[in-house]
Amino acid sequence: MSPDLLEACLTKTADRIAAGEVSPVELVEASLRRIEQISDTHAFISVDAEDTLAVARASEAMIAAGHRLGPLHGVPVALKDNIGVRGKPTTAGSAILAAHRPAEDATVTRRLRSAGAIIVGKTNMHEFAWGGTSANPHYGFVTNPWDPSRMPGGSSGGSGVAVAARACFGALGTDTGGSVRLPSALNGITGLRPTIGRVSNAGVVPLAWSMDTVGPMARTAADCATMLNALAGYDPADAGSVDRAGEDFGRGLELGVAGLRIGLIDGYSLHHVQPAVDKALRAALETLEGAGAHTSEVSIADIEGNISAQLTVEAAEPSTYHQRWLRERPQDYGEDVRLLLEAGEMLMATQYLQAQRYRGLLRRQTLAAMAQVDVLACPTLPFTATPLGETTVEIDQGAPEDMLSAIMQFTGLSSLTGLPAISVPCGFDDAGLPVGMQLIGKPFAEATLLRVAAGFQADTTFHTMAPPLPRS
Amino acid sequence: MSPDLLEACLTKTADRIAAGEVSPVELVEASLRRIEQISDTHAFISVDAEDTLAVARASEAMIAAGHRLGPLHGVPVALKDNIGVRGKPTTAGSAILAAHRPAEDATVTRRLRSAGAIIVGKTNMHEFAWGGTSANPHYGFVTNPWDPSRMPGGSSGGSGVAVAARACFGALGTDTGGSVRLPSALNGITGLRPTIGRVSNAGVVPLAWSMDTVGPMARTAADCATMLNALAGYDPADAGSVDRAGEDFGRGLELGVAGLRIGLIDGYSLHHVQPAVDKALRAALETLEGAGAHTSEVSIADIEGNISAQLTVEAAEPSTYHQRWLRERPQDYGEDVRLLLEAGEMLMATQYLQAQRYRGLLRRQTLAAMAQVDVLACPTLPFTATPLGETTVEIDQGAPEDMLSAIMQFTGLSSLTGLPAISVPCGFDDAGLPVGMQLIGKPFAEATLLRVAAGFQADTTFHTMAPPLPRS
Repeated sequence: MSPDLLEACLTKTADRIAAGEVSPVELVEASLRRIEQISDTHAFISVDAEDTLAVARASEAMIAAGHRLGPLHGVPVALKDNIGVRGKPTTAGSAILAAHRPAEDATVTRRLRSAGAIIVGKTNMHEFAWGGTSANPHYGFVTNPWDPSRMPGGSSGGSGVAVAARACFGALGTDTGGSVRLPSALNGITGLRPTIGRVSNAGVVPLAWSMDTVGPMARTAADCATMLNALAGYDPADAGSVDRAGEDFGRGLELGVAGLRIGLIDGYSLHHVQPAVDKALRAALETLEGAGAHTSEVSIADIEGNISAQLTVEAAEPSTYHQRWLRERPQDYGEDVRLLLEAGEMLMATQYLQAQRYRGLLRRQTLAAMAQVDVLACPTLPFTATPLGETTVEIDQGAPEDMLSAIMQFTGLSSLTGLPAISVPCGFDDAGLPVGMQLIGKPFAEATLLRVAAGFQADTTFHTMAPPLPRS
Repeated sequence: MSPDLLEACLTKTADRIAAGEVSPVELVEASLRRIEQISDTHAFISVDAEDTLAVARASEAMIAAGHRLGPLHGVPVALKDNIGVRGKPTTAGSAILAAHRPAEDATVTRRLRSAGAIIVGKTNMHEFAWGGTSANPHYGFVTNPWDPSRMPGGSSGGSGVAVAARACFGALGTDTGGSVRLPSALNGITGLRPTIGRVSNAGVVPLAWSMDTVGPMARTAADCATMLNALAGYDPADAGSVDRAGEDFGRGLELGVAGLRIGLIDGYSLHHVQPAVDKALRAALETLEGAGAHTSEVSIADIEGNISAQLTVEAAEPSTYHQRWLRERPQDYGEDVRLLLEAGEMLMATQYLQAQRYRGLLRRQTLAAMAQVDVLACPTLPFTATPLGETTVEIDQGAPEDMLSAIMQFTGLSSLTGLPAISVPCGFDDAGLPVGMQLIGKPFAEATLLRVAAGFQADTTFHTMAPPLPRS
């Protein structure tokens, strides 16, 4: 079989399946083989090859009979392991849920199935999507396919690696403080955090419910748009779901960026980043300007409070969810996560609520700043992949900083305000490690974000680059 | 001038003004006179007779020229003093805001003005709408017009007294844990807590923002419907405002209750109440059944957690809002409220968040129970007005209970779940003190609540009874 099979992007592969040019069974076989080949990355927690192949054969029979389920028919995808799949392991990267087999699919799982996608496996992640390192004490360190001595970011690290290593065509991550965008940037793929409420969280193990959202991770903006078309929509089973008219996120991707206004946040967007990240971002902005976009500076007066607010919310809500297990099964947590959860239990209600009030202020200030622009731009994170197990990072030739807050430097703004954001590959550092650019949009303006990202990808090739891969 | 002028209800008075039969100036003069006459009740914090009369003269000139502003044209109303009025005192019953003069009207103030209402004064309230007694250390004890040795309930006690004593035709209160419904019941008037998000809170001094809502207080359900027509609607200035199509809440009031299903919550609706309250409520249910309504029992498994959850939310959020003033101006608070606010600062984030999670559970259980009925019924509170200054109450021939939690026994369900609720007069105890029945509706089903209340009022006269009043 041809190595090309895994090389084409999701959207093209889906078209080929629909045209009968590519077989879902061959695709799934290739995908399962690649998963096996990259087992050293620990990207997957569970794979059920037998059931997956049975689904692939049925999927192939359907399409052969002229019955296309939807735009993802026959496409192998992977799900982060905190997303419920009926009757299958859904561990959330934990020992506590090692034996958990949900009675029902998560809403996003059901939506992907309805669109025809084939689930090839559940991906590794930070324990309960929380923690300062990529080390999962129960299911192994996930490693970066661009350099196995480096971390892939998290908490959706397995999904990031699975997509980058062409083990599947798209994957779902979940993003609370940056967990879709960070592994997308660090693995050189494209990942979207939708507007809060756009995609259902029903059936997903929560981290911090006021910021949690599922998001698509794939190779290109167009692929993310195809996935979002399947994922988006009101769900009465999720109290945070927003009832909103549907739209086609793939429409307008070819319009380009001419005339679009890109805001750079004063003292923030290009502040306190590694030189290679700074260089890649400036080059990306030049590319966008070359294609007709306008950049300008905007101000968000109180933006510097964002990391503290995010850490507060991400501490208090998970500690509440985990409170009973912390009492009954403390020994079943990894030490990293247990300490964070125990620290969260020390927070006062007023600290949490002051952080929540700050979120309202930050949202008002951000929306005011965005009145003059279409999107905001900044790096996804201020550095490239660090060595595995590091708990500190050196950014601006300064002193080592705590990894957990350093990695959230640019992702908190969207998490706290609920605004959508996308990470797109925009270059490499001298060691060949990927750099990500983050674009932040107005509420429910995912289509604009995807249009800018697709416009950028029309003029660049970063998103087509693959890490060193085994032969298919 | 005729004493009838203040005796007619809001809706009839508005009709008479529109027909040119009654003069806004005469109405406002009568209203100002009554406010003066009941000054011993301390129902009002501020009244600007001169400006109000100038407005009344202009209002009269307009209607004479055929220019009717809206359905409240020329009708004297009062506002609780935590609701902003441009350039006028808006103390929230506090010394801290004694000099506060808002730069803009609250949205509800503006909406009442647009509908033609004339604001005759700002009513007294618990300090910052919080506290266990009706005693306001800065603006005087509000007393109950049915018995001046009794409390009028709160926190919107001044609004309740002003309406009951015919000092105005309608008033606004705010309801966090019951502050519209409790003084409505204790003063023998009708008061509606709308669905959370239905009426804007912009420009209103908050208590606990996740439960706060403004609500109309008047003599009848029809009057509340007329006021709600003016108040309801999306407001982009309030992040909690819900964008929802408008409706006429006055439509259907005459349909009666035949065929409507009324749920009684097992072990709750008729449990642990004073005998006089029990008797009045059972008689009210018989009246409704006589008019064709069906009653049945429903179950809400975890309802008993409601008081603890409500006290937790009402402690944590206000303590956050007041945190800076508590540091800088502790001496400017009354002791009652300062101690409550300081106690709220002791709460852990996880305690607050467990209460918030309980709210989600309670809402799901309540909506499930309501699938079989149109409204739920119970008393508004389990006892009638207690002597002024009491901090405990005896309910079921039992031991004295803490007033603050006892008074919330029946109001918390709607506050925690965000469901609308109305209090209607349904009888009197042996001492002639009013009893209130509470009806709880489905989300945004205020029209159904108002229809049941109006149907009940068509068959009863409790809402037409007035406390002993001075001669006009």
